[in-house]
Amino acid sequence: MIEYIIGVDGGGSGTRVRLARLDGQELAQGQSGPSGLGLGIERAWTSVAHAVTLAFRAAGLEQPSLQRMAIGLGLAGVHNKQWAASFVEHNPGYALVALESDALTTLLGAHAGQPGVIVAIGTGSVGEVLHADGSRHEVGGWGFPSGDEAGGAWIGMRAINHAQQVVDGRVPGSAFATAVIDACGGQRNAMQVWLAAASQTTYAQLARLVLEHAASNAVAHGILSDAGRQIALIARALDPAGTLPVALCGGLAAPLSSYLPAALLQLVVPAQGDSAAGGLRLISKHLQEQ
Amino acid sequence: MIEYIIGVDGGGSGTRVRLARLDGQELAQGQSGPSGLGLGIERAWTSVAHAVTLAFRAAGLEQPSLQRMAIGLGLAGVHNKQWAASFVEHNPGYALVALESDALTTLLGAHAGQPGVIVAIGTGSVGEVLHADGSRHEVGGWGFPSGDEAGGAWIGMRAINHAQQVVDGRVPGSAFATAVIDACGGQRNAMQVWLAAASQTTYAQLARLVLEHAASNAVAHGILSDAGRQIALIARALDPAGTLPVALCGGLAAPLSSYLPAALLQLVVPAQGDSAAGGLRLISKHLQEQ
Repeated sequence: MIEYIIGVDGGGSGTRVRLARLDGQELAQGQSGPSGLGLGIERAWTSVAHAVTLAFRAAGLEQPSLQRMAIGLGLAGVHNKQWAASFVEHNPGYALVALESDALTTLLGAHAGQPGVIVAIGTGSVGEVLHADGSRHEVGGWGFPSGDEAGGAWIGMRAINHAQQVVDGRVPGSAFATAVIDACGGQRNAMQVWLAAASQTTYAQLARLVLEHAASNAVAHGILSDAGRQIALIARALDPAGTLPVALCGGLAAPLSSYLPAALLQLVVPAQGDSAAGGLRLISKHLQEQ
Repeated sequence: MIEYIIGVDGGGSGTRVRLARLDGQELAQGQSGPSGLGLGIERAWTSVAHAVTLAFRAAGLEQPSLQRMAIGLGLAGVHNKQWAASFVEHNPGYALVALESDALTTLLGAHAGQPGVIVAIGTGSVGEVLHADGSRHEVGGWGFPSGDEAGGAWIGMRAINHAQQVVDGRVPGSAFATAVIDACGGQRNAMQVWLAAASQTTYAQLARLVLEHAASNAVAHGILSDAGRQIALIARALDPAGTLPVALCGGLAAPLSSYLPAALLQLVVPAQGDSAAGGLRLISKHLQEQ
């Protein structure tokens, strides 16, 4: 007998879990380490288990057997079909498991299961649409360094390229360039060391400096205006007619909103719920379809 | 007693050696596998030794003891000071070793040791100037994916980003986009697999398609025009007065020359010699300074 449903939002930086009764009444949250499938199936399930335990503790409930729970997960790495199949195979005992991409659970959470568009902008970026006929479509999310337009790593890579050009004397310097150079060690050799070790995550850390200097620096402003145009391109490809509401999600959604083209801004609505809430909707729907 | 001088151009794809008498008279060439220092010091010396042996064989000469030779090398990876020091320490017995970056030997070869500017454009890109007062200065060469503007990997990464946008319906398709998509497997999943395994070298392989379609496709033409502007920025930073001759070197120099701004084209001269010839000049100079 299923008594509880659990929604999970899991990625490379952490796992967020929402615990609810079978009727959807939310009880508590739990949070733990990363559960992106790229880090390994066992680690993903371990992080989920820990966050679930913390959610029951936060709700003041004794944790029942897993057979009393159904779990809906939006996890990074689900695009790798082998990882996804292996994750479901290693279900530790939940009565029901529904696994989808974090882009889909973000979509289900943001528009409360109704038709709409999301563009998620964090370290990377991806867009997804749910149409009235139930069909879905994804745009972007091709990954770093060639894709993920407007994401933190995309922004940060442009910032350090500008800093390189300033150090070389190719373009004039500025307080913005100096801030980026300082963040990477303050001189050419240190920047080379920083670059040799740089990952998508470290590039994304430079995005903060671009946001800070955009009001006073034309290059920083230009990078963010390009990001805004890229977000609009993604949204328009997802809904060419421009009739669906668009929710911007992820850590860079709010700071980038002032750089969006006006035509897109007219369609933007606040997200109603997060990706863990979307996980709850996902598993509720699966239960209804059983 | 030194009887022979040897010039070496070594990188990640191969090693080219030029054998000459002490007076500079060139005798023969030899070619072997990679000797970029990033692949290891022992491997670099082994590749050099093999190319030297082949050069003596090509000259129809019995190879004398290493003590009869002085060797000047322009090697990729010399920017890492630890690798460079270790390479010189492991000199297998040459009477004299002069080690510099491949950018410097390219510069010495291209302008026959006279003042001038080079911009080398292959998989990556880098520029270097030799002024009349003997001073030198380098611009660019910061590496993939954030730098190396106009290099093959830079061009290829822009090509596959365009292909992604076409596949997603963000921008209109074209024969150019189709050629890139086909080169990466012909569909979204195959492209994702291609991207997951992509390196600087594989991105650079797409540059050929950009060159092929630039005459008929605005996006491909725009990528190469951007590359031309980036080359001009590098050249101008190296010689702001614009008085020195500029030699474009590397595999992409010739195909990109039609995309250079007119102001730069006026300064462009053919390279007089390659990087191995520059290695010969390097070691000759060291011998004279002994």
